Amino acid sequence: MINSSDSIQKLIEHFASLPSIGKKTAQRLVFHLLKKDKNYIQDFAKSLISISENVILCSSCNNFADTDPCPICSSHKRNSNIICVVEQPSDIIVIEKTNEFFGKYHVLHGLLNPLDGITPDVLKIKELLPRLTEVDELILALNPTIEGEVTIQYLSKLIKPLDIKISRIARGVPIGSSLEFTDQATISNAFESRIYI
Amino acid sequence: MINSSDSIQKLIEHFASLPSIGKKTAQRLVFHLLKKDKNYIQDFAKSLISISENVILCSSCNNFADTDPCPICSSHKRNSNIICVVEQPSDIIVIEKTNEFFGKYHVLHGLLNPLDGITPDVLKIKELLPRLTEVDELILALNPTIEGEVTIQYLSKLIKPLDIKISRIARGVPIGSSLEFTDQATISNAFESRIYI
Repeated sequence: MINSSDSIQKLIEHFASLPSIGKKTAQRLVFHLLKKDKNYIQDFAKSLISISENVILCSSCNNFADTDPCPICSSHKRNSNIICVVEQPSDIIVIEKTNEFFGKYHVLHGLLNPLDGITPDVLKIKELLPRLTEVDELILALNPTIEGEVTIQYLSKLIKPLDIKISRIARGVPIGSSLEFTDQATISNAFESRIYI
Repeated sequence: MINSSDSIQKLIEHFASLPSIGKKTAQRLVFHLLKKDKNYIQDFAKSLISISENVILCSSCNNFADTDPCPICSSHKRNSNIICVVEQPSDIIVIEKTNEFFGKYHVLHGLLNPLDGITPDVLKIKELLPRLTEVDELILALNPTIEGEVTIQYLSKLIKPLDIKISRIARGVPIGSSLEFTDQATISNAFESRIYI
């Protein structure tokens, strides 16, 4: 027998089912937990149960939240006239950390990829349209991948007739990196999108 | 606000408190969980609660187990005349995977380190002595570190008078590695411990 406790074995398998956590790391995490006191482990379990019971999708922006509408959608300090469209909820955290954007968000929950069956109706695109009545600008903050480009093209065609400003976030050489280690596609794009100063 | 859900924020902090998991990884794990269905998350929580409620120390070998004595100590297929002493429960899993050892175990739950206050009475050493009455051989499978060496010396001095064979697992160049990348201390030791063939 490899493990003398079924409970331990089961928890190792649970941790190992998470992305980027292998069997060995999972084992190390579980043996780490076993050194902690009961309350610590039970608090961890409670917060797992809490996300399964309390987290919902905001009916307006489709972000994960404990309340509907979410704190961002219900905040009077945020500008409702500008909406930033993102692929997934974790992108909102990244953007919020910059403290640069004070509008509202819309989460698509994916990017278009017709070959994989991800067509416009799978994404939260139809939920975006009714929100655009009082919007002046839509910022598309999607990943600069093929799926991102396809989604940007689809959305811009869809929204152009509505007379709303549409922008996409800039692609280029990341701050702090060196040209030497930047890929050719990024450099070509940085040349094309050069800004006159 | 960085995160629009307190439940999510709390779970991220729980994951980030685990060793080798940073804030970013923790966030990625939680957003991965949010894509899974409720039952999956609640099963995960249940197995956490299960280790906090069901896992005990075997009163004989001090390994983590769901039962007392543990499955290894209560197995009639295991040789009770030979005990392998290890630092921690996870070492047993590593040894069991080799399928080479069919004796029983004793977990010390640490290694001697008097400067850090880890003296013999902190470890499960006094629990080892009563087990030695029917034992022929004691294998010390402790890490080849300073603390491991100190513990090996202490145990061998303590047990020598009892007329029991004591061995320690071999130190040397690991299988599959190359001399070029092996440290000097390991190579010196491999020379000292050379085996005539």
